[in-house]
Amino acid sequence: MAYNKLIRTLMIEIPSVPGSLGKVTTAIGVAGGDIGEVKTIKVGLAYTLRNITVQFENEEQLSEILAAINKLDGFRVQTVSDEVLRAHEGGKVQMKSKVPIESLADLSRVYTPGVANVCRVIQEEPEKAKIYTNIGNSVAIVTDGTAILGLGDIGPVAGMPVMEGKSALFDQLVGINGIPILLDTKNPDEIVETVKHIAPGFSGILLEDIGSPHCFEVEERLKKALDIPVMHDDQHGTAVVTLAAVISACKSTGVDLKEASVGQIGLGAAGLAICRMLMAYGAKSVLGADRSQEAKTRLENYGGTAVDQLEELMERCDIVIATTGVAGLIKKEWVRKGQIILALSNPKPEIERGEALEAGAAYAADGRSVNNVLGFPGIFRGVLNAQAKEVTHPMLVAAAEAIASCTKPGDLVPQPLDPEVHEAVAAAVENVALNLGKK
Amino acid sequence: MAYNKLIRTLMIEIPSVPGSLGKVTTAIGVAGGDIGEVKTIKVGLAYTLRNITVQFENEEQLSEILAAINKLDGFRVQTVSDEVLRAHEGGKVQMKSKVPIESLADLSRVYTPGVANVCRVIQEEPEKAKIYTNIGNSVAIVTDGTAILGLGDIGPVAGMPVMEGKSALFDQLVGINGIPILLDTKNPDEIVETVKHIAPGFSGILLEDIGSPHCFEVEERLKKALDIPVMHDDQHGTAVVTLAAVISACKSTGVDLKEASVGQIGLGAAGLAICRMLMAYGAKSVLGADRSQEAKTRLENYGGTAVDQLEELMERCDIVIATTGVAGLIKKEWVRKGQIILALSNPKPEIERGEALEAGAAYAADGRSVNNVLGFPGIFRGVLNAQAKEVTHPMLVAAAEAIASCTKPGDLVPQPLDPEVHEAVAAAVENVALNLGKK
Repeated sequence: MAYNKLIRTLMIEIPSVPGSLGKVTTAIGVAGGDIGEVKTIKVGLAYTLRNITVQFENEEQLSEILAAINKLDGFRVQTVSDEVLRAHEGGKVQMKSKVPIESLADLSRVYTPGVANVCRVIQEEPEKAKIYTNIGNSVAIVTDGTAILGLGDIGPVAGMPVMEGKSALFDQLVGINGIPILLDTKNPDEIVETVKHIAPGFSGILLEDIGSPHCFEVEERLKKALDIPVMHDDQHGTAVVTLAAVISACKSTGVDLKEASVGQIGLGAAGLAICRMLMAYGAKSVLGADRSQEAKTRLENYGGTAVDQLEELMERCDIVIATTGVAGLIKKEWVRKGQIILALSNPKPEIERGEALEAGAAYAADGRSVNNVLGFPGIFRGVLNAQAKEVTHPMLVAAAEAIASCTKPGDLVPQPLDPEVHEAVAAAVENVALNLGKK
Repeated sequence: MAYNKLIRTLMIEIPSVPGSLGKVTTAIGVAGGDIGEVKTIKVGLAYTLRNITVQFENEEQLSEILAAINKLDGFRVQTVSDEVLRAHEGGKVQMKSKVPIESLADLSRVYTPGVANVCRVIQEEPEKAKIYTNIGNSVAIVTDGTAILGLGDIGPVAGMPVMEGKSALFDQLVGINGIPILLDTKNPDEIVETVKHIAPGFSGILLEDIGSPHCFEVEERLKKALDIPVMHDDQHGTAVVTLAAVISACKSTGVDLKEASVGQIGLGAAGLAICRMLMAYGAKSVLGADRSQEAKTRLENYGGTAVDQLEELMERCDIVIATTGVAGLIKKEWVRKGQIILALSNPKPEIERGEALEAGAAYAADGRSVNNVLGFPGIFRGVLNAQAKEVTHPMLVAAAEAIASCTKPGDLVPQPLDPEVHEAVAAAVENVALNLGKK
């Protein structure tokens, strides 16, 4: 087939009467579409749902094809999907049985009456639940939908593809059951109460895409209330991967991170957590800047130094990290000779790498490769392995060091799907949790 | 190997030093155990966890073997599992990725940055969540652990094997994601609030093993609050399968259920729901007996007739159903000639089948085959297929009729793993939900 054609998959409701498929394929062909795969999704009483993959020249032709189908009596195009949307059809994760249930003997073993004995064993020794149920290997992925990716407060349902993505990564990278929990409330009291009430089924809580500032309160209160690890990924997951990147950048340039002066531009959920992580690592001087006075006060409460002007921060710091979301915020003339600059905002950094190097930076990078897929899977694998009751900063620092130790010389971070990274992170976290680490 | 030997699998913590496996296997052998399979569960830094399957003569010898192992320095037997317990090790269900994530291209498709576009599509058209996430195929299996099987209020964690069993059956029989949700509260207000707050991630709520009487309030309030189907399985799932059994029994004996007088002994969660289901089916005369005045009032509020004496109920009814949990409650001399008696309590019925027949019953059965596995999977498949906003009594009656229509002449109910039954139930429920049924 010709190059440069566009491909989309049309999910179409087709009346369940003979000749219907002929009608719709003819309509597509007459409108100029080349038909590829035809797949039946659901055979219903009134209509059949089929996915028809169509190649066409341009968007105008697609509009004509869609109009031609919708003009047919009883036919309706439900969705037009590209490759990304297709990968999401039906959702990305599913709850699967690990045991075959094919005979009455199987049924009596995994369901009634056999299951009663397993319940009794757990009733007598609650710790056995970690052995005879999946609770010990399950993490709730909880969101209220208020800060989905860079999209903002789009609601938990629209955020579900992100939660399912995390769940799929949990499964594929570290074999954890990640259960998305979508909350219909943004009220911190209700979030805390709800998560507390459903906590018995889980051995960890990953808070995800919860907006600032209520994310701080929600996390702190849940950490206090629950005796299982609770972590807000947008704070600490991001901070772990960022600390790993900073460690690698320091290695590349021969800078001693603990003795250096580090500046964080942007003290939102991620920025503040990065400052806390740097302090936990042992960095003696951590400065931060933000437009919000509340954010600066929060930094000072954690022991950091707030500065009011970006220029001042740029002038005083050997290492600068920016997570503001504001493209081009850092002016070239502010860059100090020999500085390390990690401008991490996506898709556009606070200063382009080339520009920073030209202005005299010793090391510069943007955030494209700084993906928190490097952090959360191994961190939770580690705490679950150790049956830890909390995630602590020493565990998170160990995770960052493990990521840095897997980074190839000159790179900022490792390849995010490399299984060795996740094993290394899990082992590092487990070690600290079991007090076998050097801490 | 010898017959009549017992087999157990010992999960043992073995120090991670060379020679340890030799020590433990020697200890088992010296104590008289025959070692079968040896499987490594987890290699840790301090110890390794292994499953060792051992054959032995009797319980005393098992005690000796366990003592011999535990006497070894640093060795500990964690669990002793029979076949049923082994089937539960690690839990029975797991959240699996449906999409491979093997390359950076895969990652960008199912996670960032690709996923942002899917979120945006759902934000613009929330209905698309049913296509691009698994929400449309997910049911929460919710328990507070207050009425687990016949075991009572043993707590939600000890009840987890039942919830995982239901989840496994959902997957294997009808391809639904069943997500166990264990609640740390028995307070109806808190249960209702919690389920409401997590509802956006699900298209159905299966309430499970929640005690009476708060189960009634919880279900009614959730049905009103949510626009997705809510069903308490111990009430309506059980009632559907019981109605199917009654229909089959009537067919076998030529009795017209709608014109017959039906008596229900025991008006707990299941008993009351059976009465309501019989009335929904069209039975003109439904009587009920219970020790609790509150339960009898509840029955009368639904339009049934409460009677005070069991003898009176036995005398007035053509069909008698008992779900009291009290073995031998029905006296032989109360049985009327030609009566249909379903004494459904497990493991011991209110009257043995043989005894009832001997006393003149035209048809008698116990509850061994009346398993609600026959109901809930198809019922939820049907409501999800129809994208129904509630489960109604007409849908449940249609489910019961579908089960009865799959029952072989002379049998009470079909084989519970027969896929045709679940397809028939789903289709019947979907038909009613889509108003395509005869109702």
